[in-house]
Amino acid sequence: MVEALKIGVAGLGTVGASLVQLLKKHQSQIALKTGKTVEVRAVSARDRSKDRGFDTSSFEWFDDPVEMAKKADIDIFVELIGGDNGPAEASVRTALQRGLHVVTANKALLAKHGVDLAVLAETNQVSLNYEAAVAGGIPIVKALRESMAGNEISRVYGILNGTCNYILTRMETDGLSFEDCLADAQRLGYAEADPTFDIEGNDTAHKLAILTSLAFGNKISSDDIYLEGITSITTADIKAADELGYRIKLLGVAQRTDTGIEQRVHPTMVPKASAIARIDGVLNAVAVDGDFVGEVILVGPGAGGNATASSVVADIADIARGDAGPALGMPAAVLADYKRARMRLHEGGYYIRLSVLDRPGAFAEIARSMGEAEISLESIVQKRNPSKGTETPGGPDQPQPVILITYETTEVAIKQALETIMSKGVVAEPPKMIRIEKLK
Amino acid sequence: MVEALKIGVAGLGTVGASLVQLLKKHQSQIALKTGKTVEVRAVSARDRSKDRGFDTSSFEWFDDPVEMAKKADIDIFVELIGGDNGPAEASVRTALQRGLHVVTANKALLAKHGVDLAVLAETNQVSLNYEAAVAGGIPIVKALRESMAGNEISRVYGILNGTCNYILTRMETDGLSFEDCLADAQRLGYAEADPTFDIEGNDTAHKLAILTSLAFGNKISSDDIYLEGITSITTADIKAADELGYRIKLLGVAQRTDTGIEQRVHPTMVPKASAIARIDGVLNAVAVDGDFVGEVILVGPGAGGNATASSVVADIADIARGDAGPALGMPAAVLADYKRARMRLHEGGYYIRLSVLDRPGAFAEIARSMGEAEISLESIVQKRNPSKGTETPGGPDQPQPVILITYETTEVAIKQALETIMSKGVVAEPPKMIRIEKLK
Repeated sequence: MVEALKIGVAGLGTVGASLVQLLKKHQSQIALKTGKTVEVRAVSARDRSKDRGFDTSSFEWFDDPVEMAKKADIDIFVELIGGDNGPAEASVRTALQRGLHVVTANKALLAKHGVDLAVLAETNQVSLNYEAAVAGGIPIVKALRESMAGNEISRVYGILNGTCNYILTRMETDGLSFEDCLADAQRLGYAEADPTFDIEGNDTAHKLAILTSLAFGNKISSDDIYLEGITSITTADIKAADELGYRIKLLGVAQRTDTGIEQRVHPTMVPKASAIARIDGVLNAVAVDGDFVGEVILVGPGAGGNATASSVVADIADIARGDAGPALGMPAAVLADYKRARMRLHEGGYYIRLSVLDRPGAFAEIARSMGEAEISLESIVQKRNPSKGTETPGGPDQPQPVILITYETTEVAIKQALETIMSKGVVAEPPKMIRIEKLK
Repeated sequence: MVEALKIGVAGLGTVGASLVQLLKKHQSQIALKTGKTVEVRAVSARDRSKDRGFDTSSFEWFDDPVEMAKKADIDIFVELIGGDNGPAEASVRTALQRGLHVVTANKALLAKHGVDLAVLAETNQVSLNYEAAVAGGIPIVKALRESMAGNEISRVYGILNGTCNYILTRMETDGLSFEDCLADAQRLGYAEADPTFDIEGNDTAHKLAILTSLAFGNKISSDDIYLEGITSITTADIKAADELGYRIKLLGVAQRTDTGIEQRVHPTMVPKASAIARIDGVLNAVAVDGDFVGEVILVGPGAGGNATASSVVADIADIARGDAGPALGMPAAVLADYKRARMRLHEGGYYIRLSVLDRPGAFAEIARSMGEAEISLESIVQKRNPSKGTETPGGPDQPQPVILITYETTEVAIKQALETIMSKGVVAEPPKMIRIEKLK
């Protein structure tokens, strides 16, 4: 007789519904693989009468997830409610305190309370698993937590938000504006009605904060992330990137530096030949640089009910098999304090797009400003500005776009150079700056 | 006081040396992550006096790995000897029988004796881990064994041999012949002095056989793999592929079909836009199609001492953490017998390169032969054959190269069509056929 592992699912949205169906469809396979029969016994959602495409009458029903965490006859509490406080937080805390294992897909909750919850899980000797919280169906949490155990990680980076990647991909392939692509993404269900959280990079930042902790063994620190979204990216930038051999991706990057750990989320120029440049549409990808393994890249669906449910089940299967490592890869007590590297000391190449006024000496001023900041230029591209709607180039009084690609320099030097350029009155609008990521 | 986990390393080649160094360098990190101090206590190699760049005097030395498996004071026996019999097999069996956990990087041993050894491990309630045996540093064994537990896998495929991928990449980028690229690979240490095992696909087949078992829950069956190496690939094929939007890769593919499971290793045309097409040089990549997760692809170094040692340590860390799943993902007793799909029923598109004699009706004969086999053509490319060494096209009596790309058909139909074409005497040499893999 195979032992049963009883599951309570809090939140019956897309992922919750997929999870219930997956566990039913693959029950016998999961039993063979884990030695346990995994059964949903209790569920919690707001609206009991809603048609979810499956029968919920055999499950114990709870209107309140905290009640379920307190009282349901279950071994694992699966939290699919979302949000970094409220019922999600309360029910997870309750479940851990009661000695239930917790599986969650909630990146916001972990980004904010991850260390706290890890302590709670350890104290109560239960698992806190969250493969689905980062990059959906991609097994990156397990890879970092387990497979990379023998590596010192120097950098982890990735495309962690499918909405942004879809928008940037469409802008490039179809030459459409950010706004048009966002509208399409909303129409197709790839973006929320209020897309702020995705397009401003917050969602990527939550996932990155978790990856950083797993990679570097520090406490999660999601407030210390340099954040820049994709709303200011134009088709002009994307075209210029293309001509210079780059693509623009919203990356989350965590990197060990001499002054601490850099955590940054921003639009990034990546060389076309790099693996990360070739991740299109809603796909996610995460790369890890380890001192022994080298670079490993995992690619897959970053969202969607079924893919996310697959990761939730992987977490459940780990618990069923008895795999019980600490939530953040090492005991919470030994996690280092997060030491933030100063963004002004960030080193890298930069893409600068200037709208240069057509006046004598303007270009010399720009070159001098870069030189004074000790910035060397790898490429300079100056083009005549075609006036909109006509086929004749812009007149002599129209500002001309100039693209600069710098060699490696520092953030502080770039900021200084751009301020100087602004102050000289040689550009028609504030310069546009996009960081270039050094990749193999 | 942290408990010690004692390791014996059999085989001190590149991987063994990297392993000893890794465990020393990252000992404290591994202790934090696993709760155990992992220490090499015993080693075995043929030549004790050889300089390996590290001091072996603190380890118990065994000339004979079987002796080490029998007598050393260790918890885990790490087998890095290689070979599917002899001391590797004997020492692994001895270690398992004695109740030691075994970690091995030996794909040949597992491909041949994997099920047997899994039974032995289960009987003795110890782990048999082998992440390093497939695709070096890529954590694909863990991904299939654990992360995909909630999926029915329909296909697993990948670039599993860096030597072949290096050769094919160089042939394409530099337009060099197979022989020249092989010689370069040998010079750079990417190919062995006797490269047969790599270039004929046997190495890929061993790894594929293991992946197949993990993906489909069947007994390992490495003798039932359709095998075709890369030695017959010419630059003409690579150029034609390029013009038609494909690249040629040596893939290992395991796929569920109506008649059983297909296991095949052969040069494969993959669409340029596919992720797998973009894996260059010595890199490896493995893709898994699951019914819930969709497609997940893992990319990384497939060989090299350090990358392989990283995977060996991941296996050791699993044992240290107490993770003890069955070796092949489910108990050996419930593994299904391997049901081989008949290769003649393989379905897919095909690339056919013909050297057509310039005689009236030749092309009509070819078209008729394809039609009789009910094969539809997606593209037909006919080019004048430039004579070697001159700039004038081949004369009227020279055979002309013709490339056909078929729509999906079966292996038996293609074979029949090609035989008919041969029998009509309209081609100057046997047709060249390369399978096309359907990819997203």
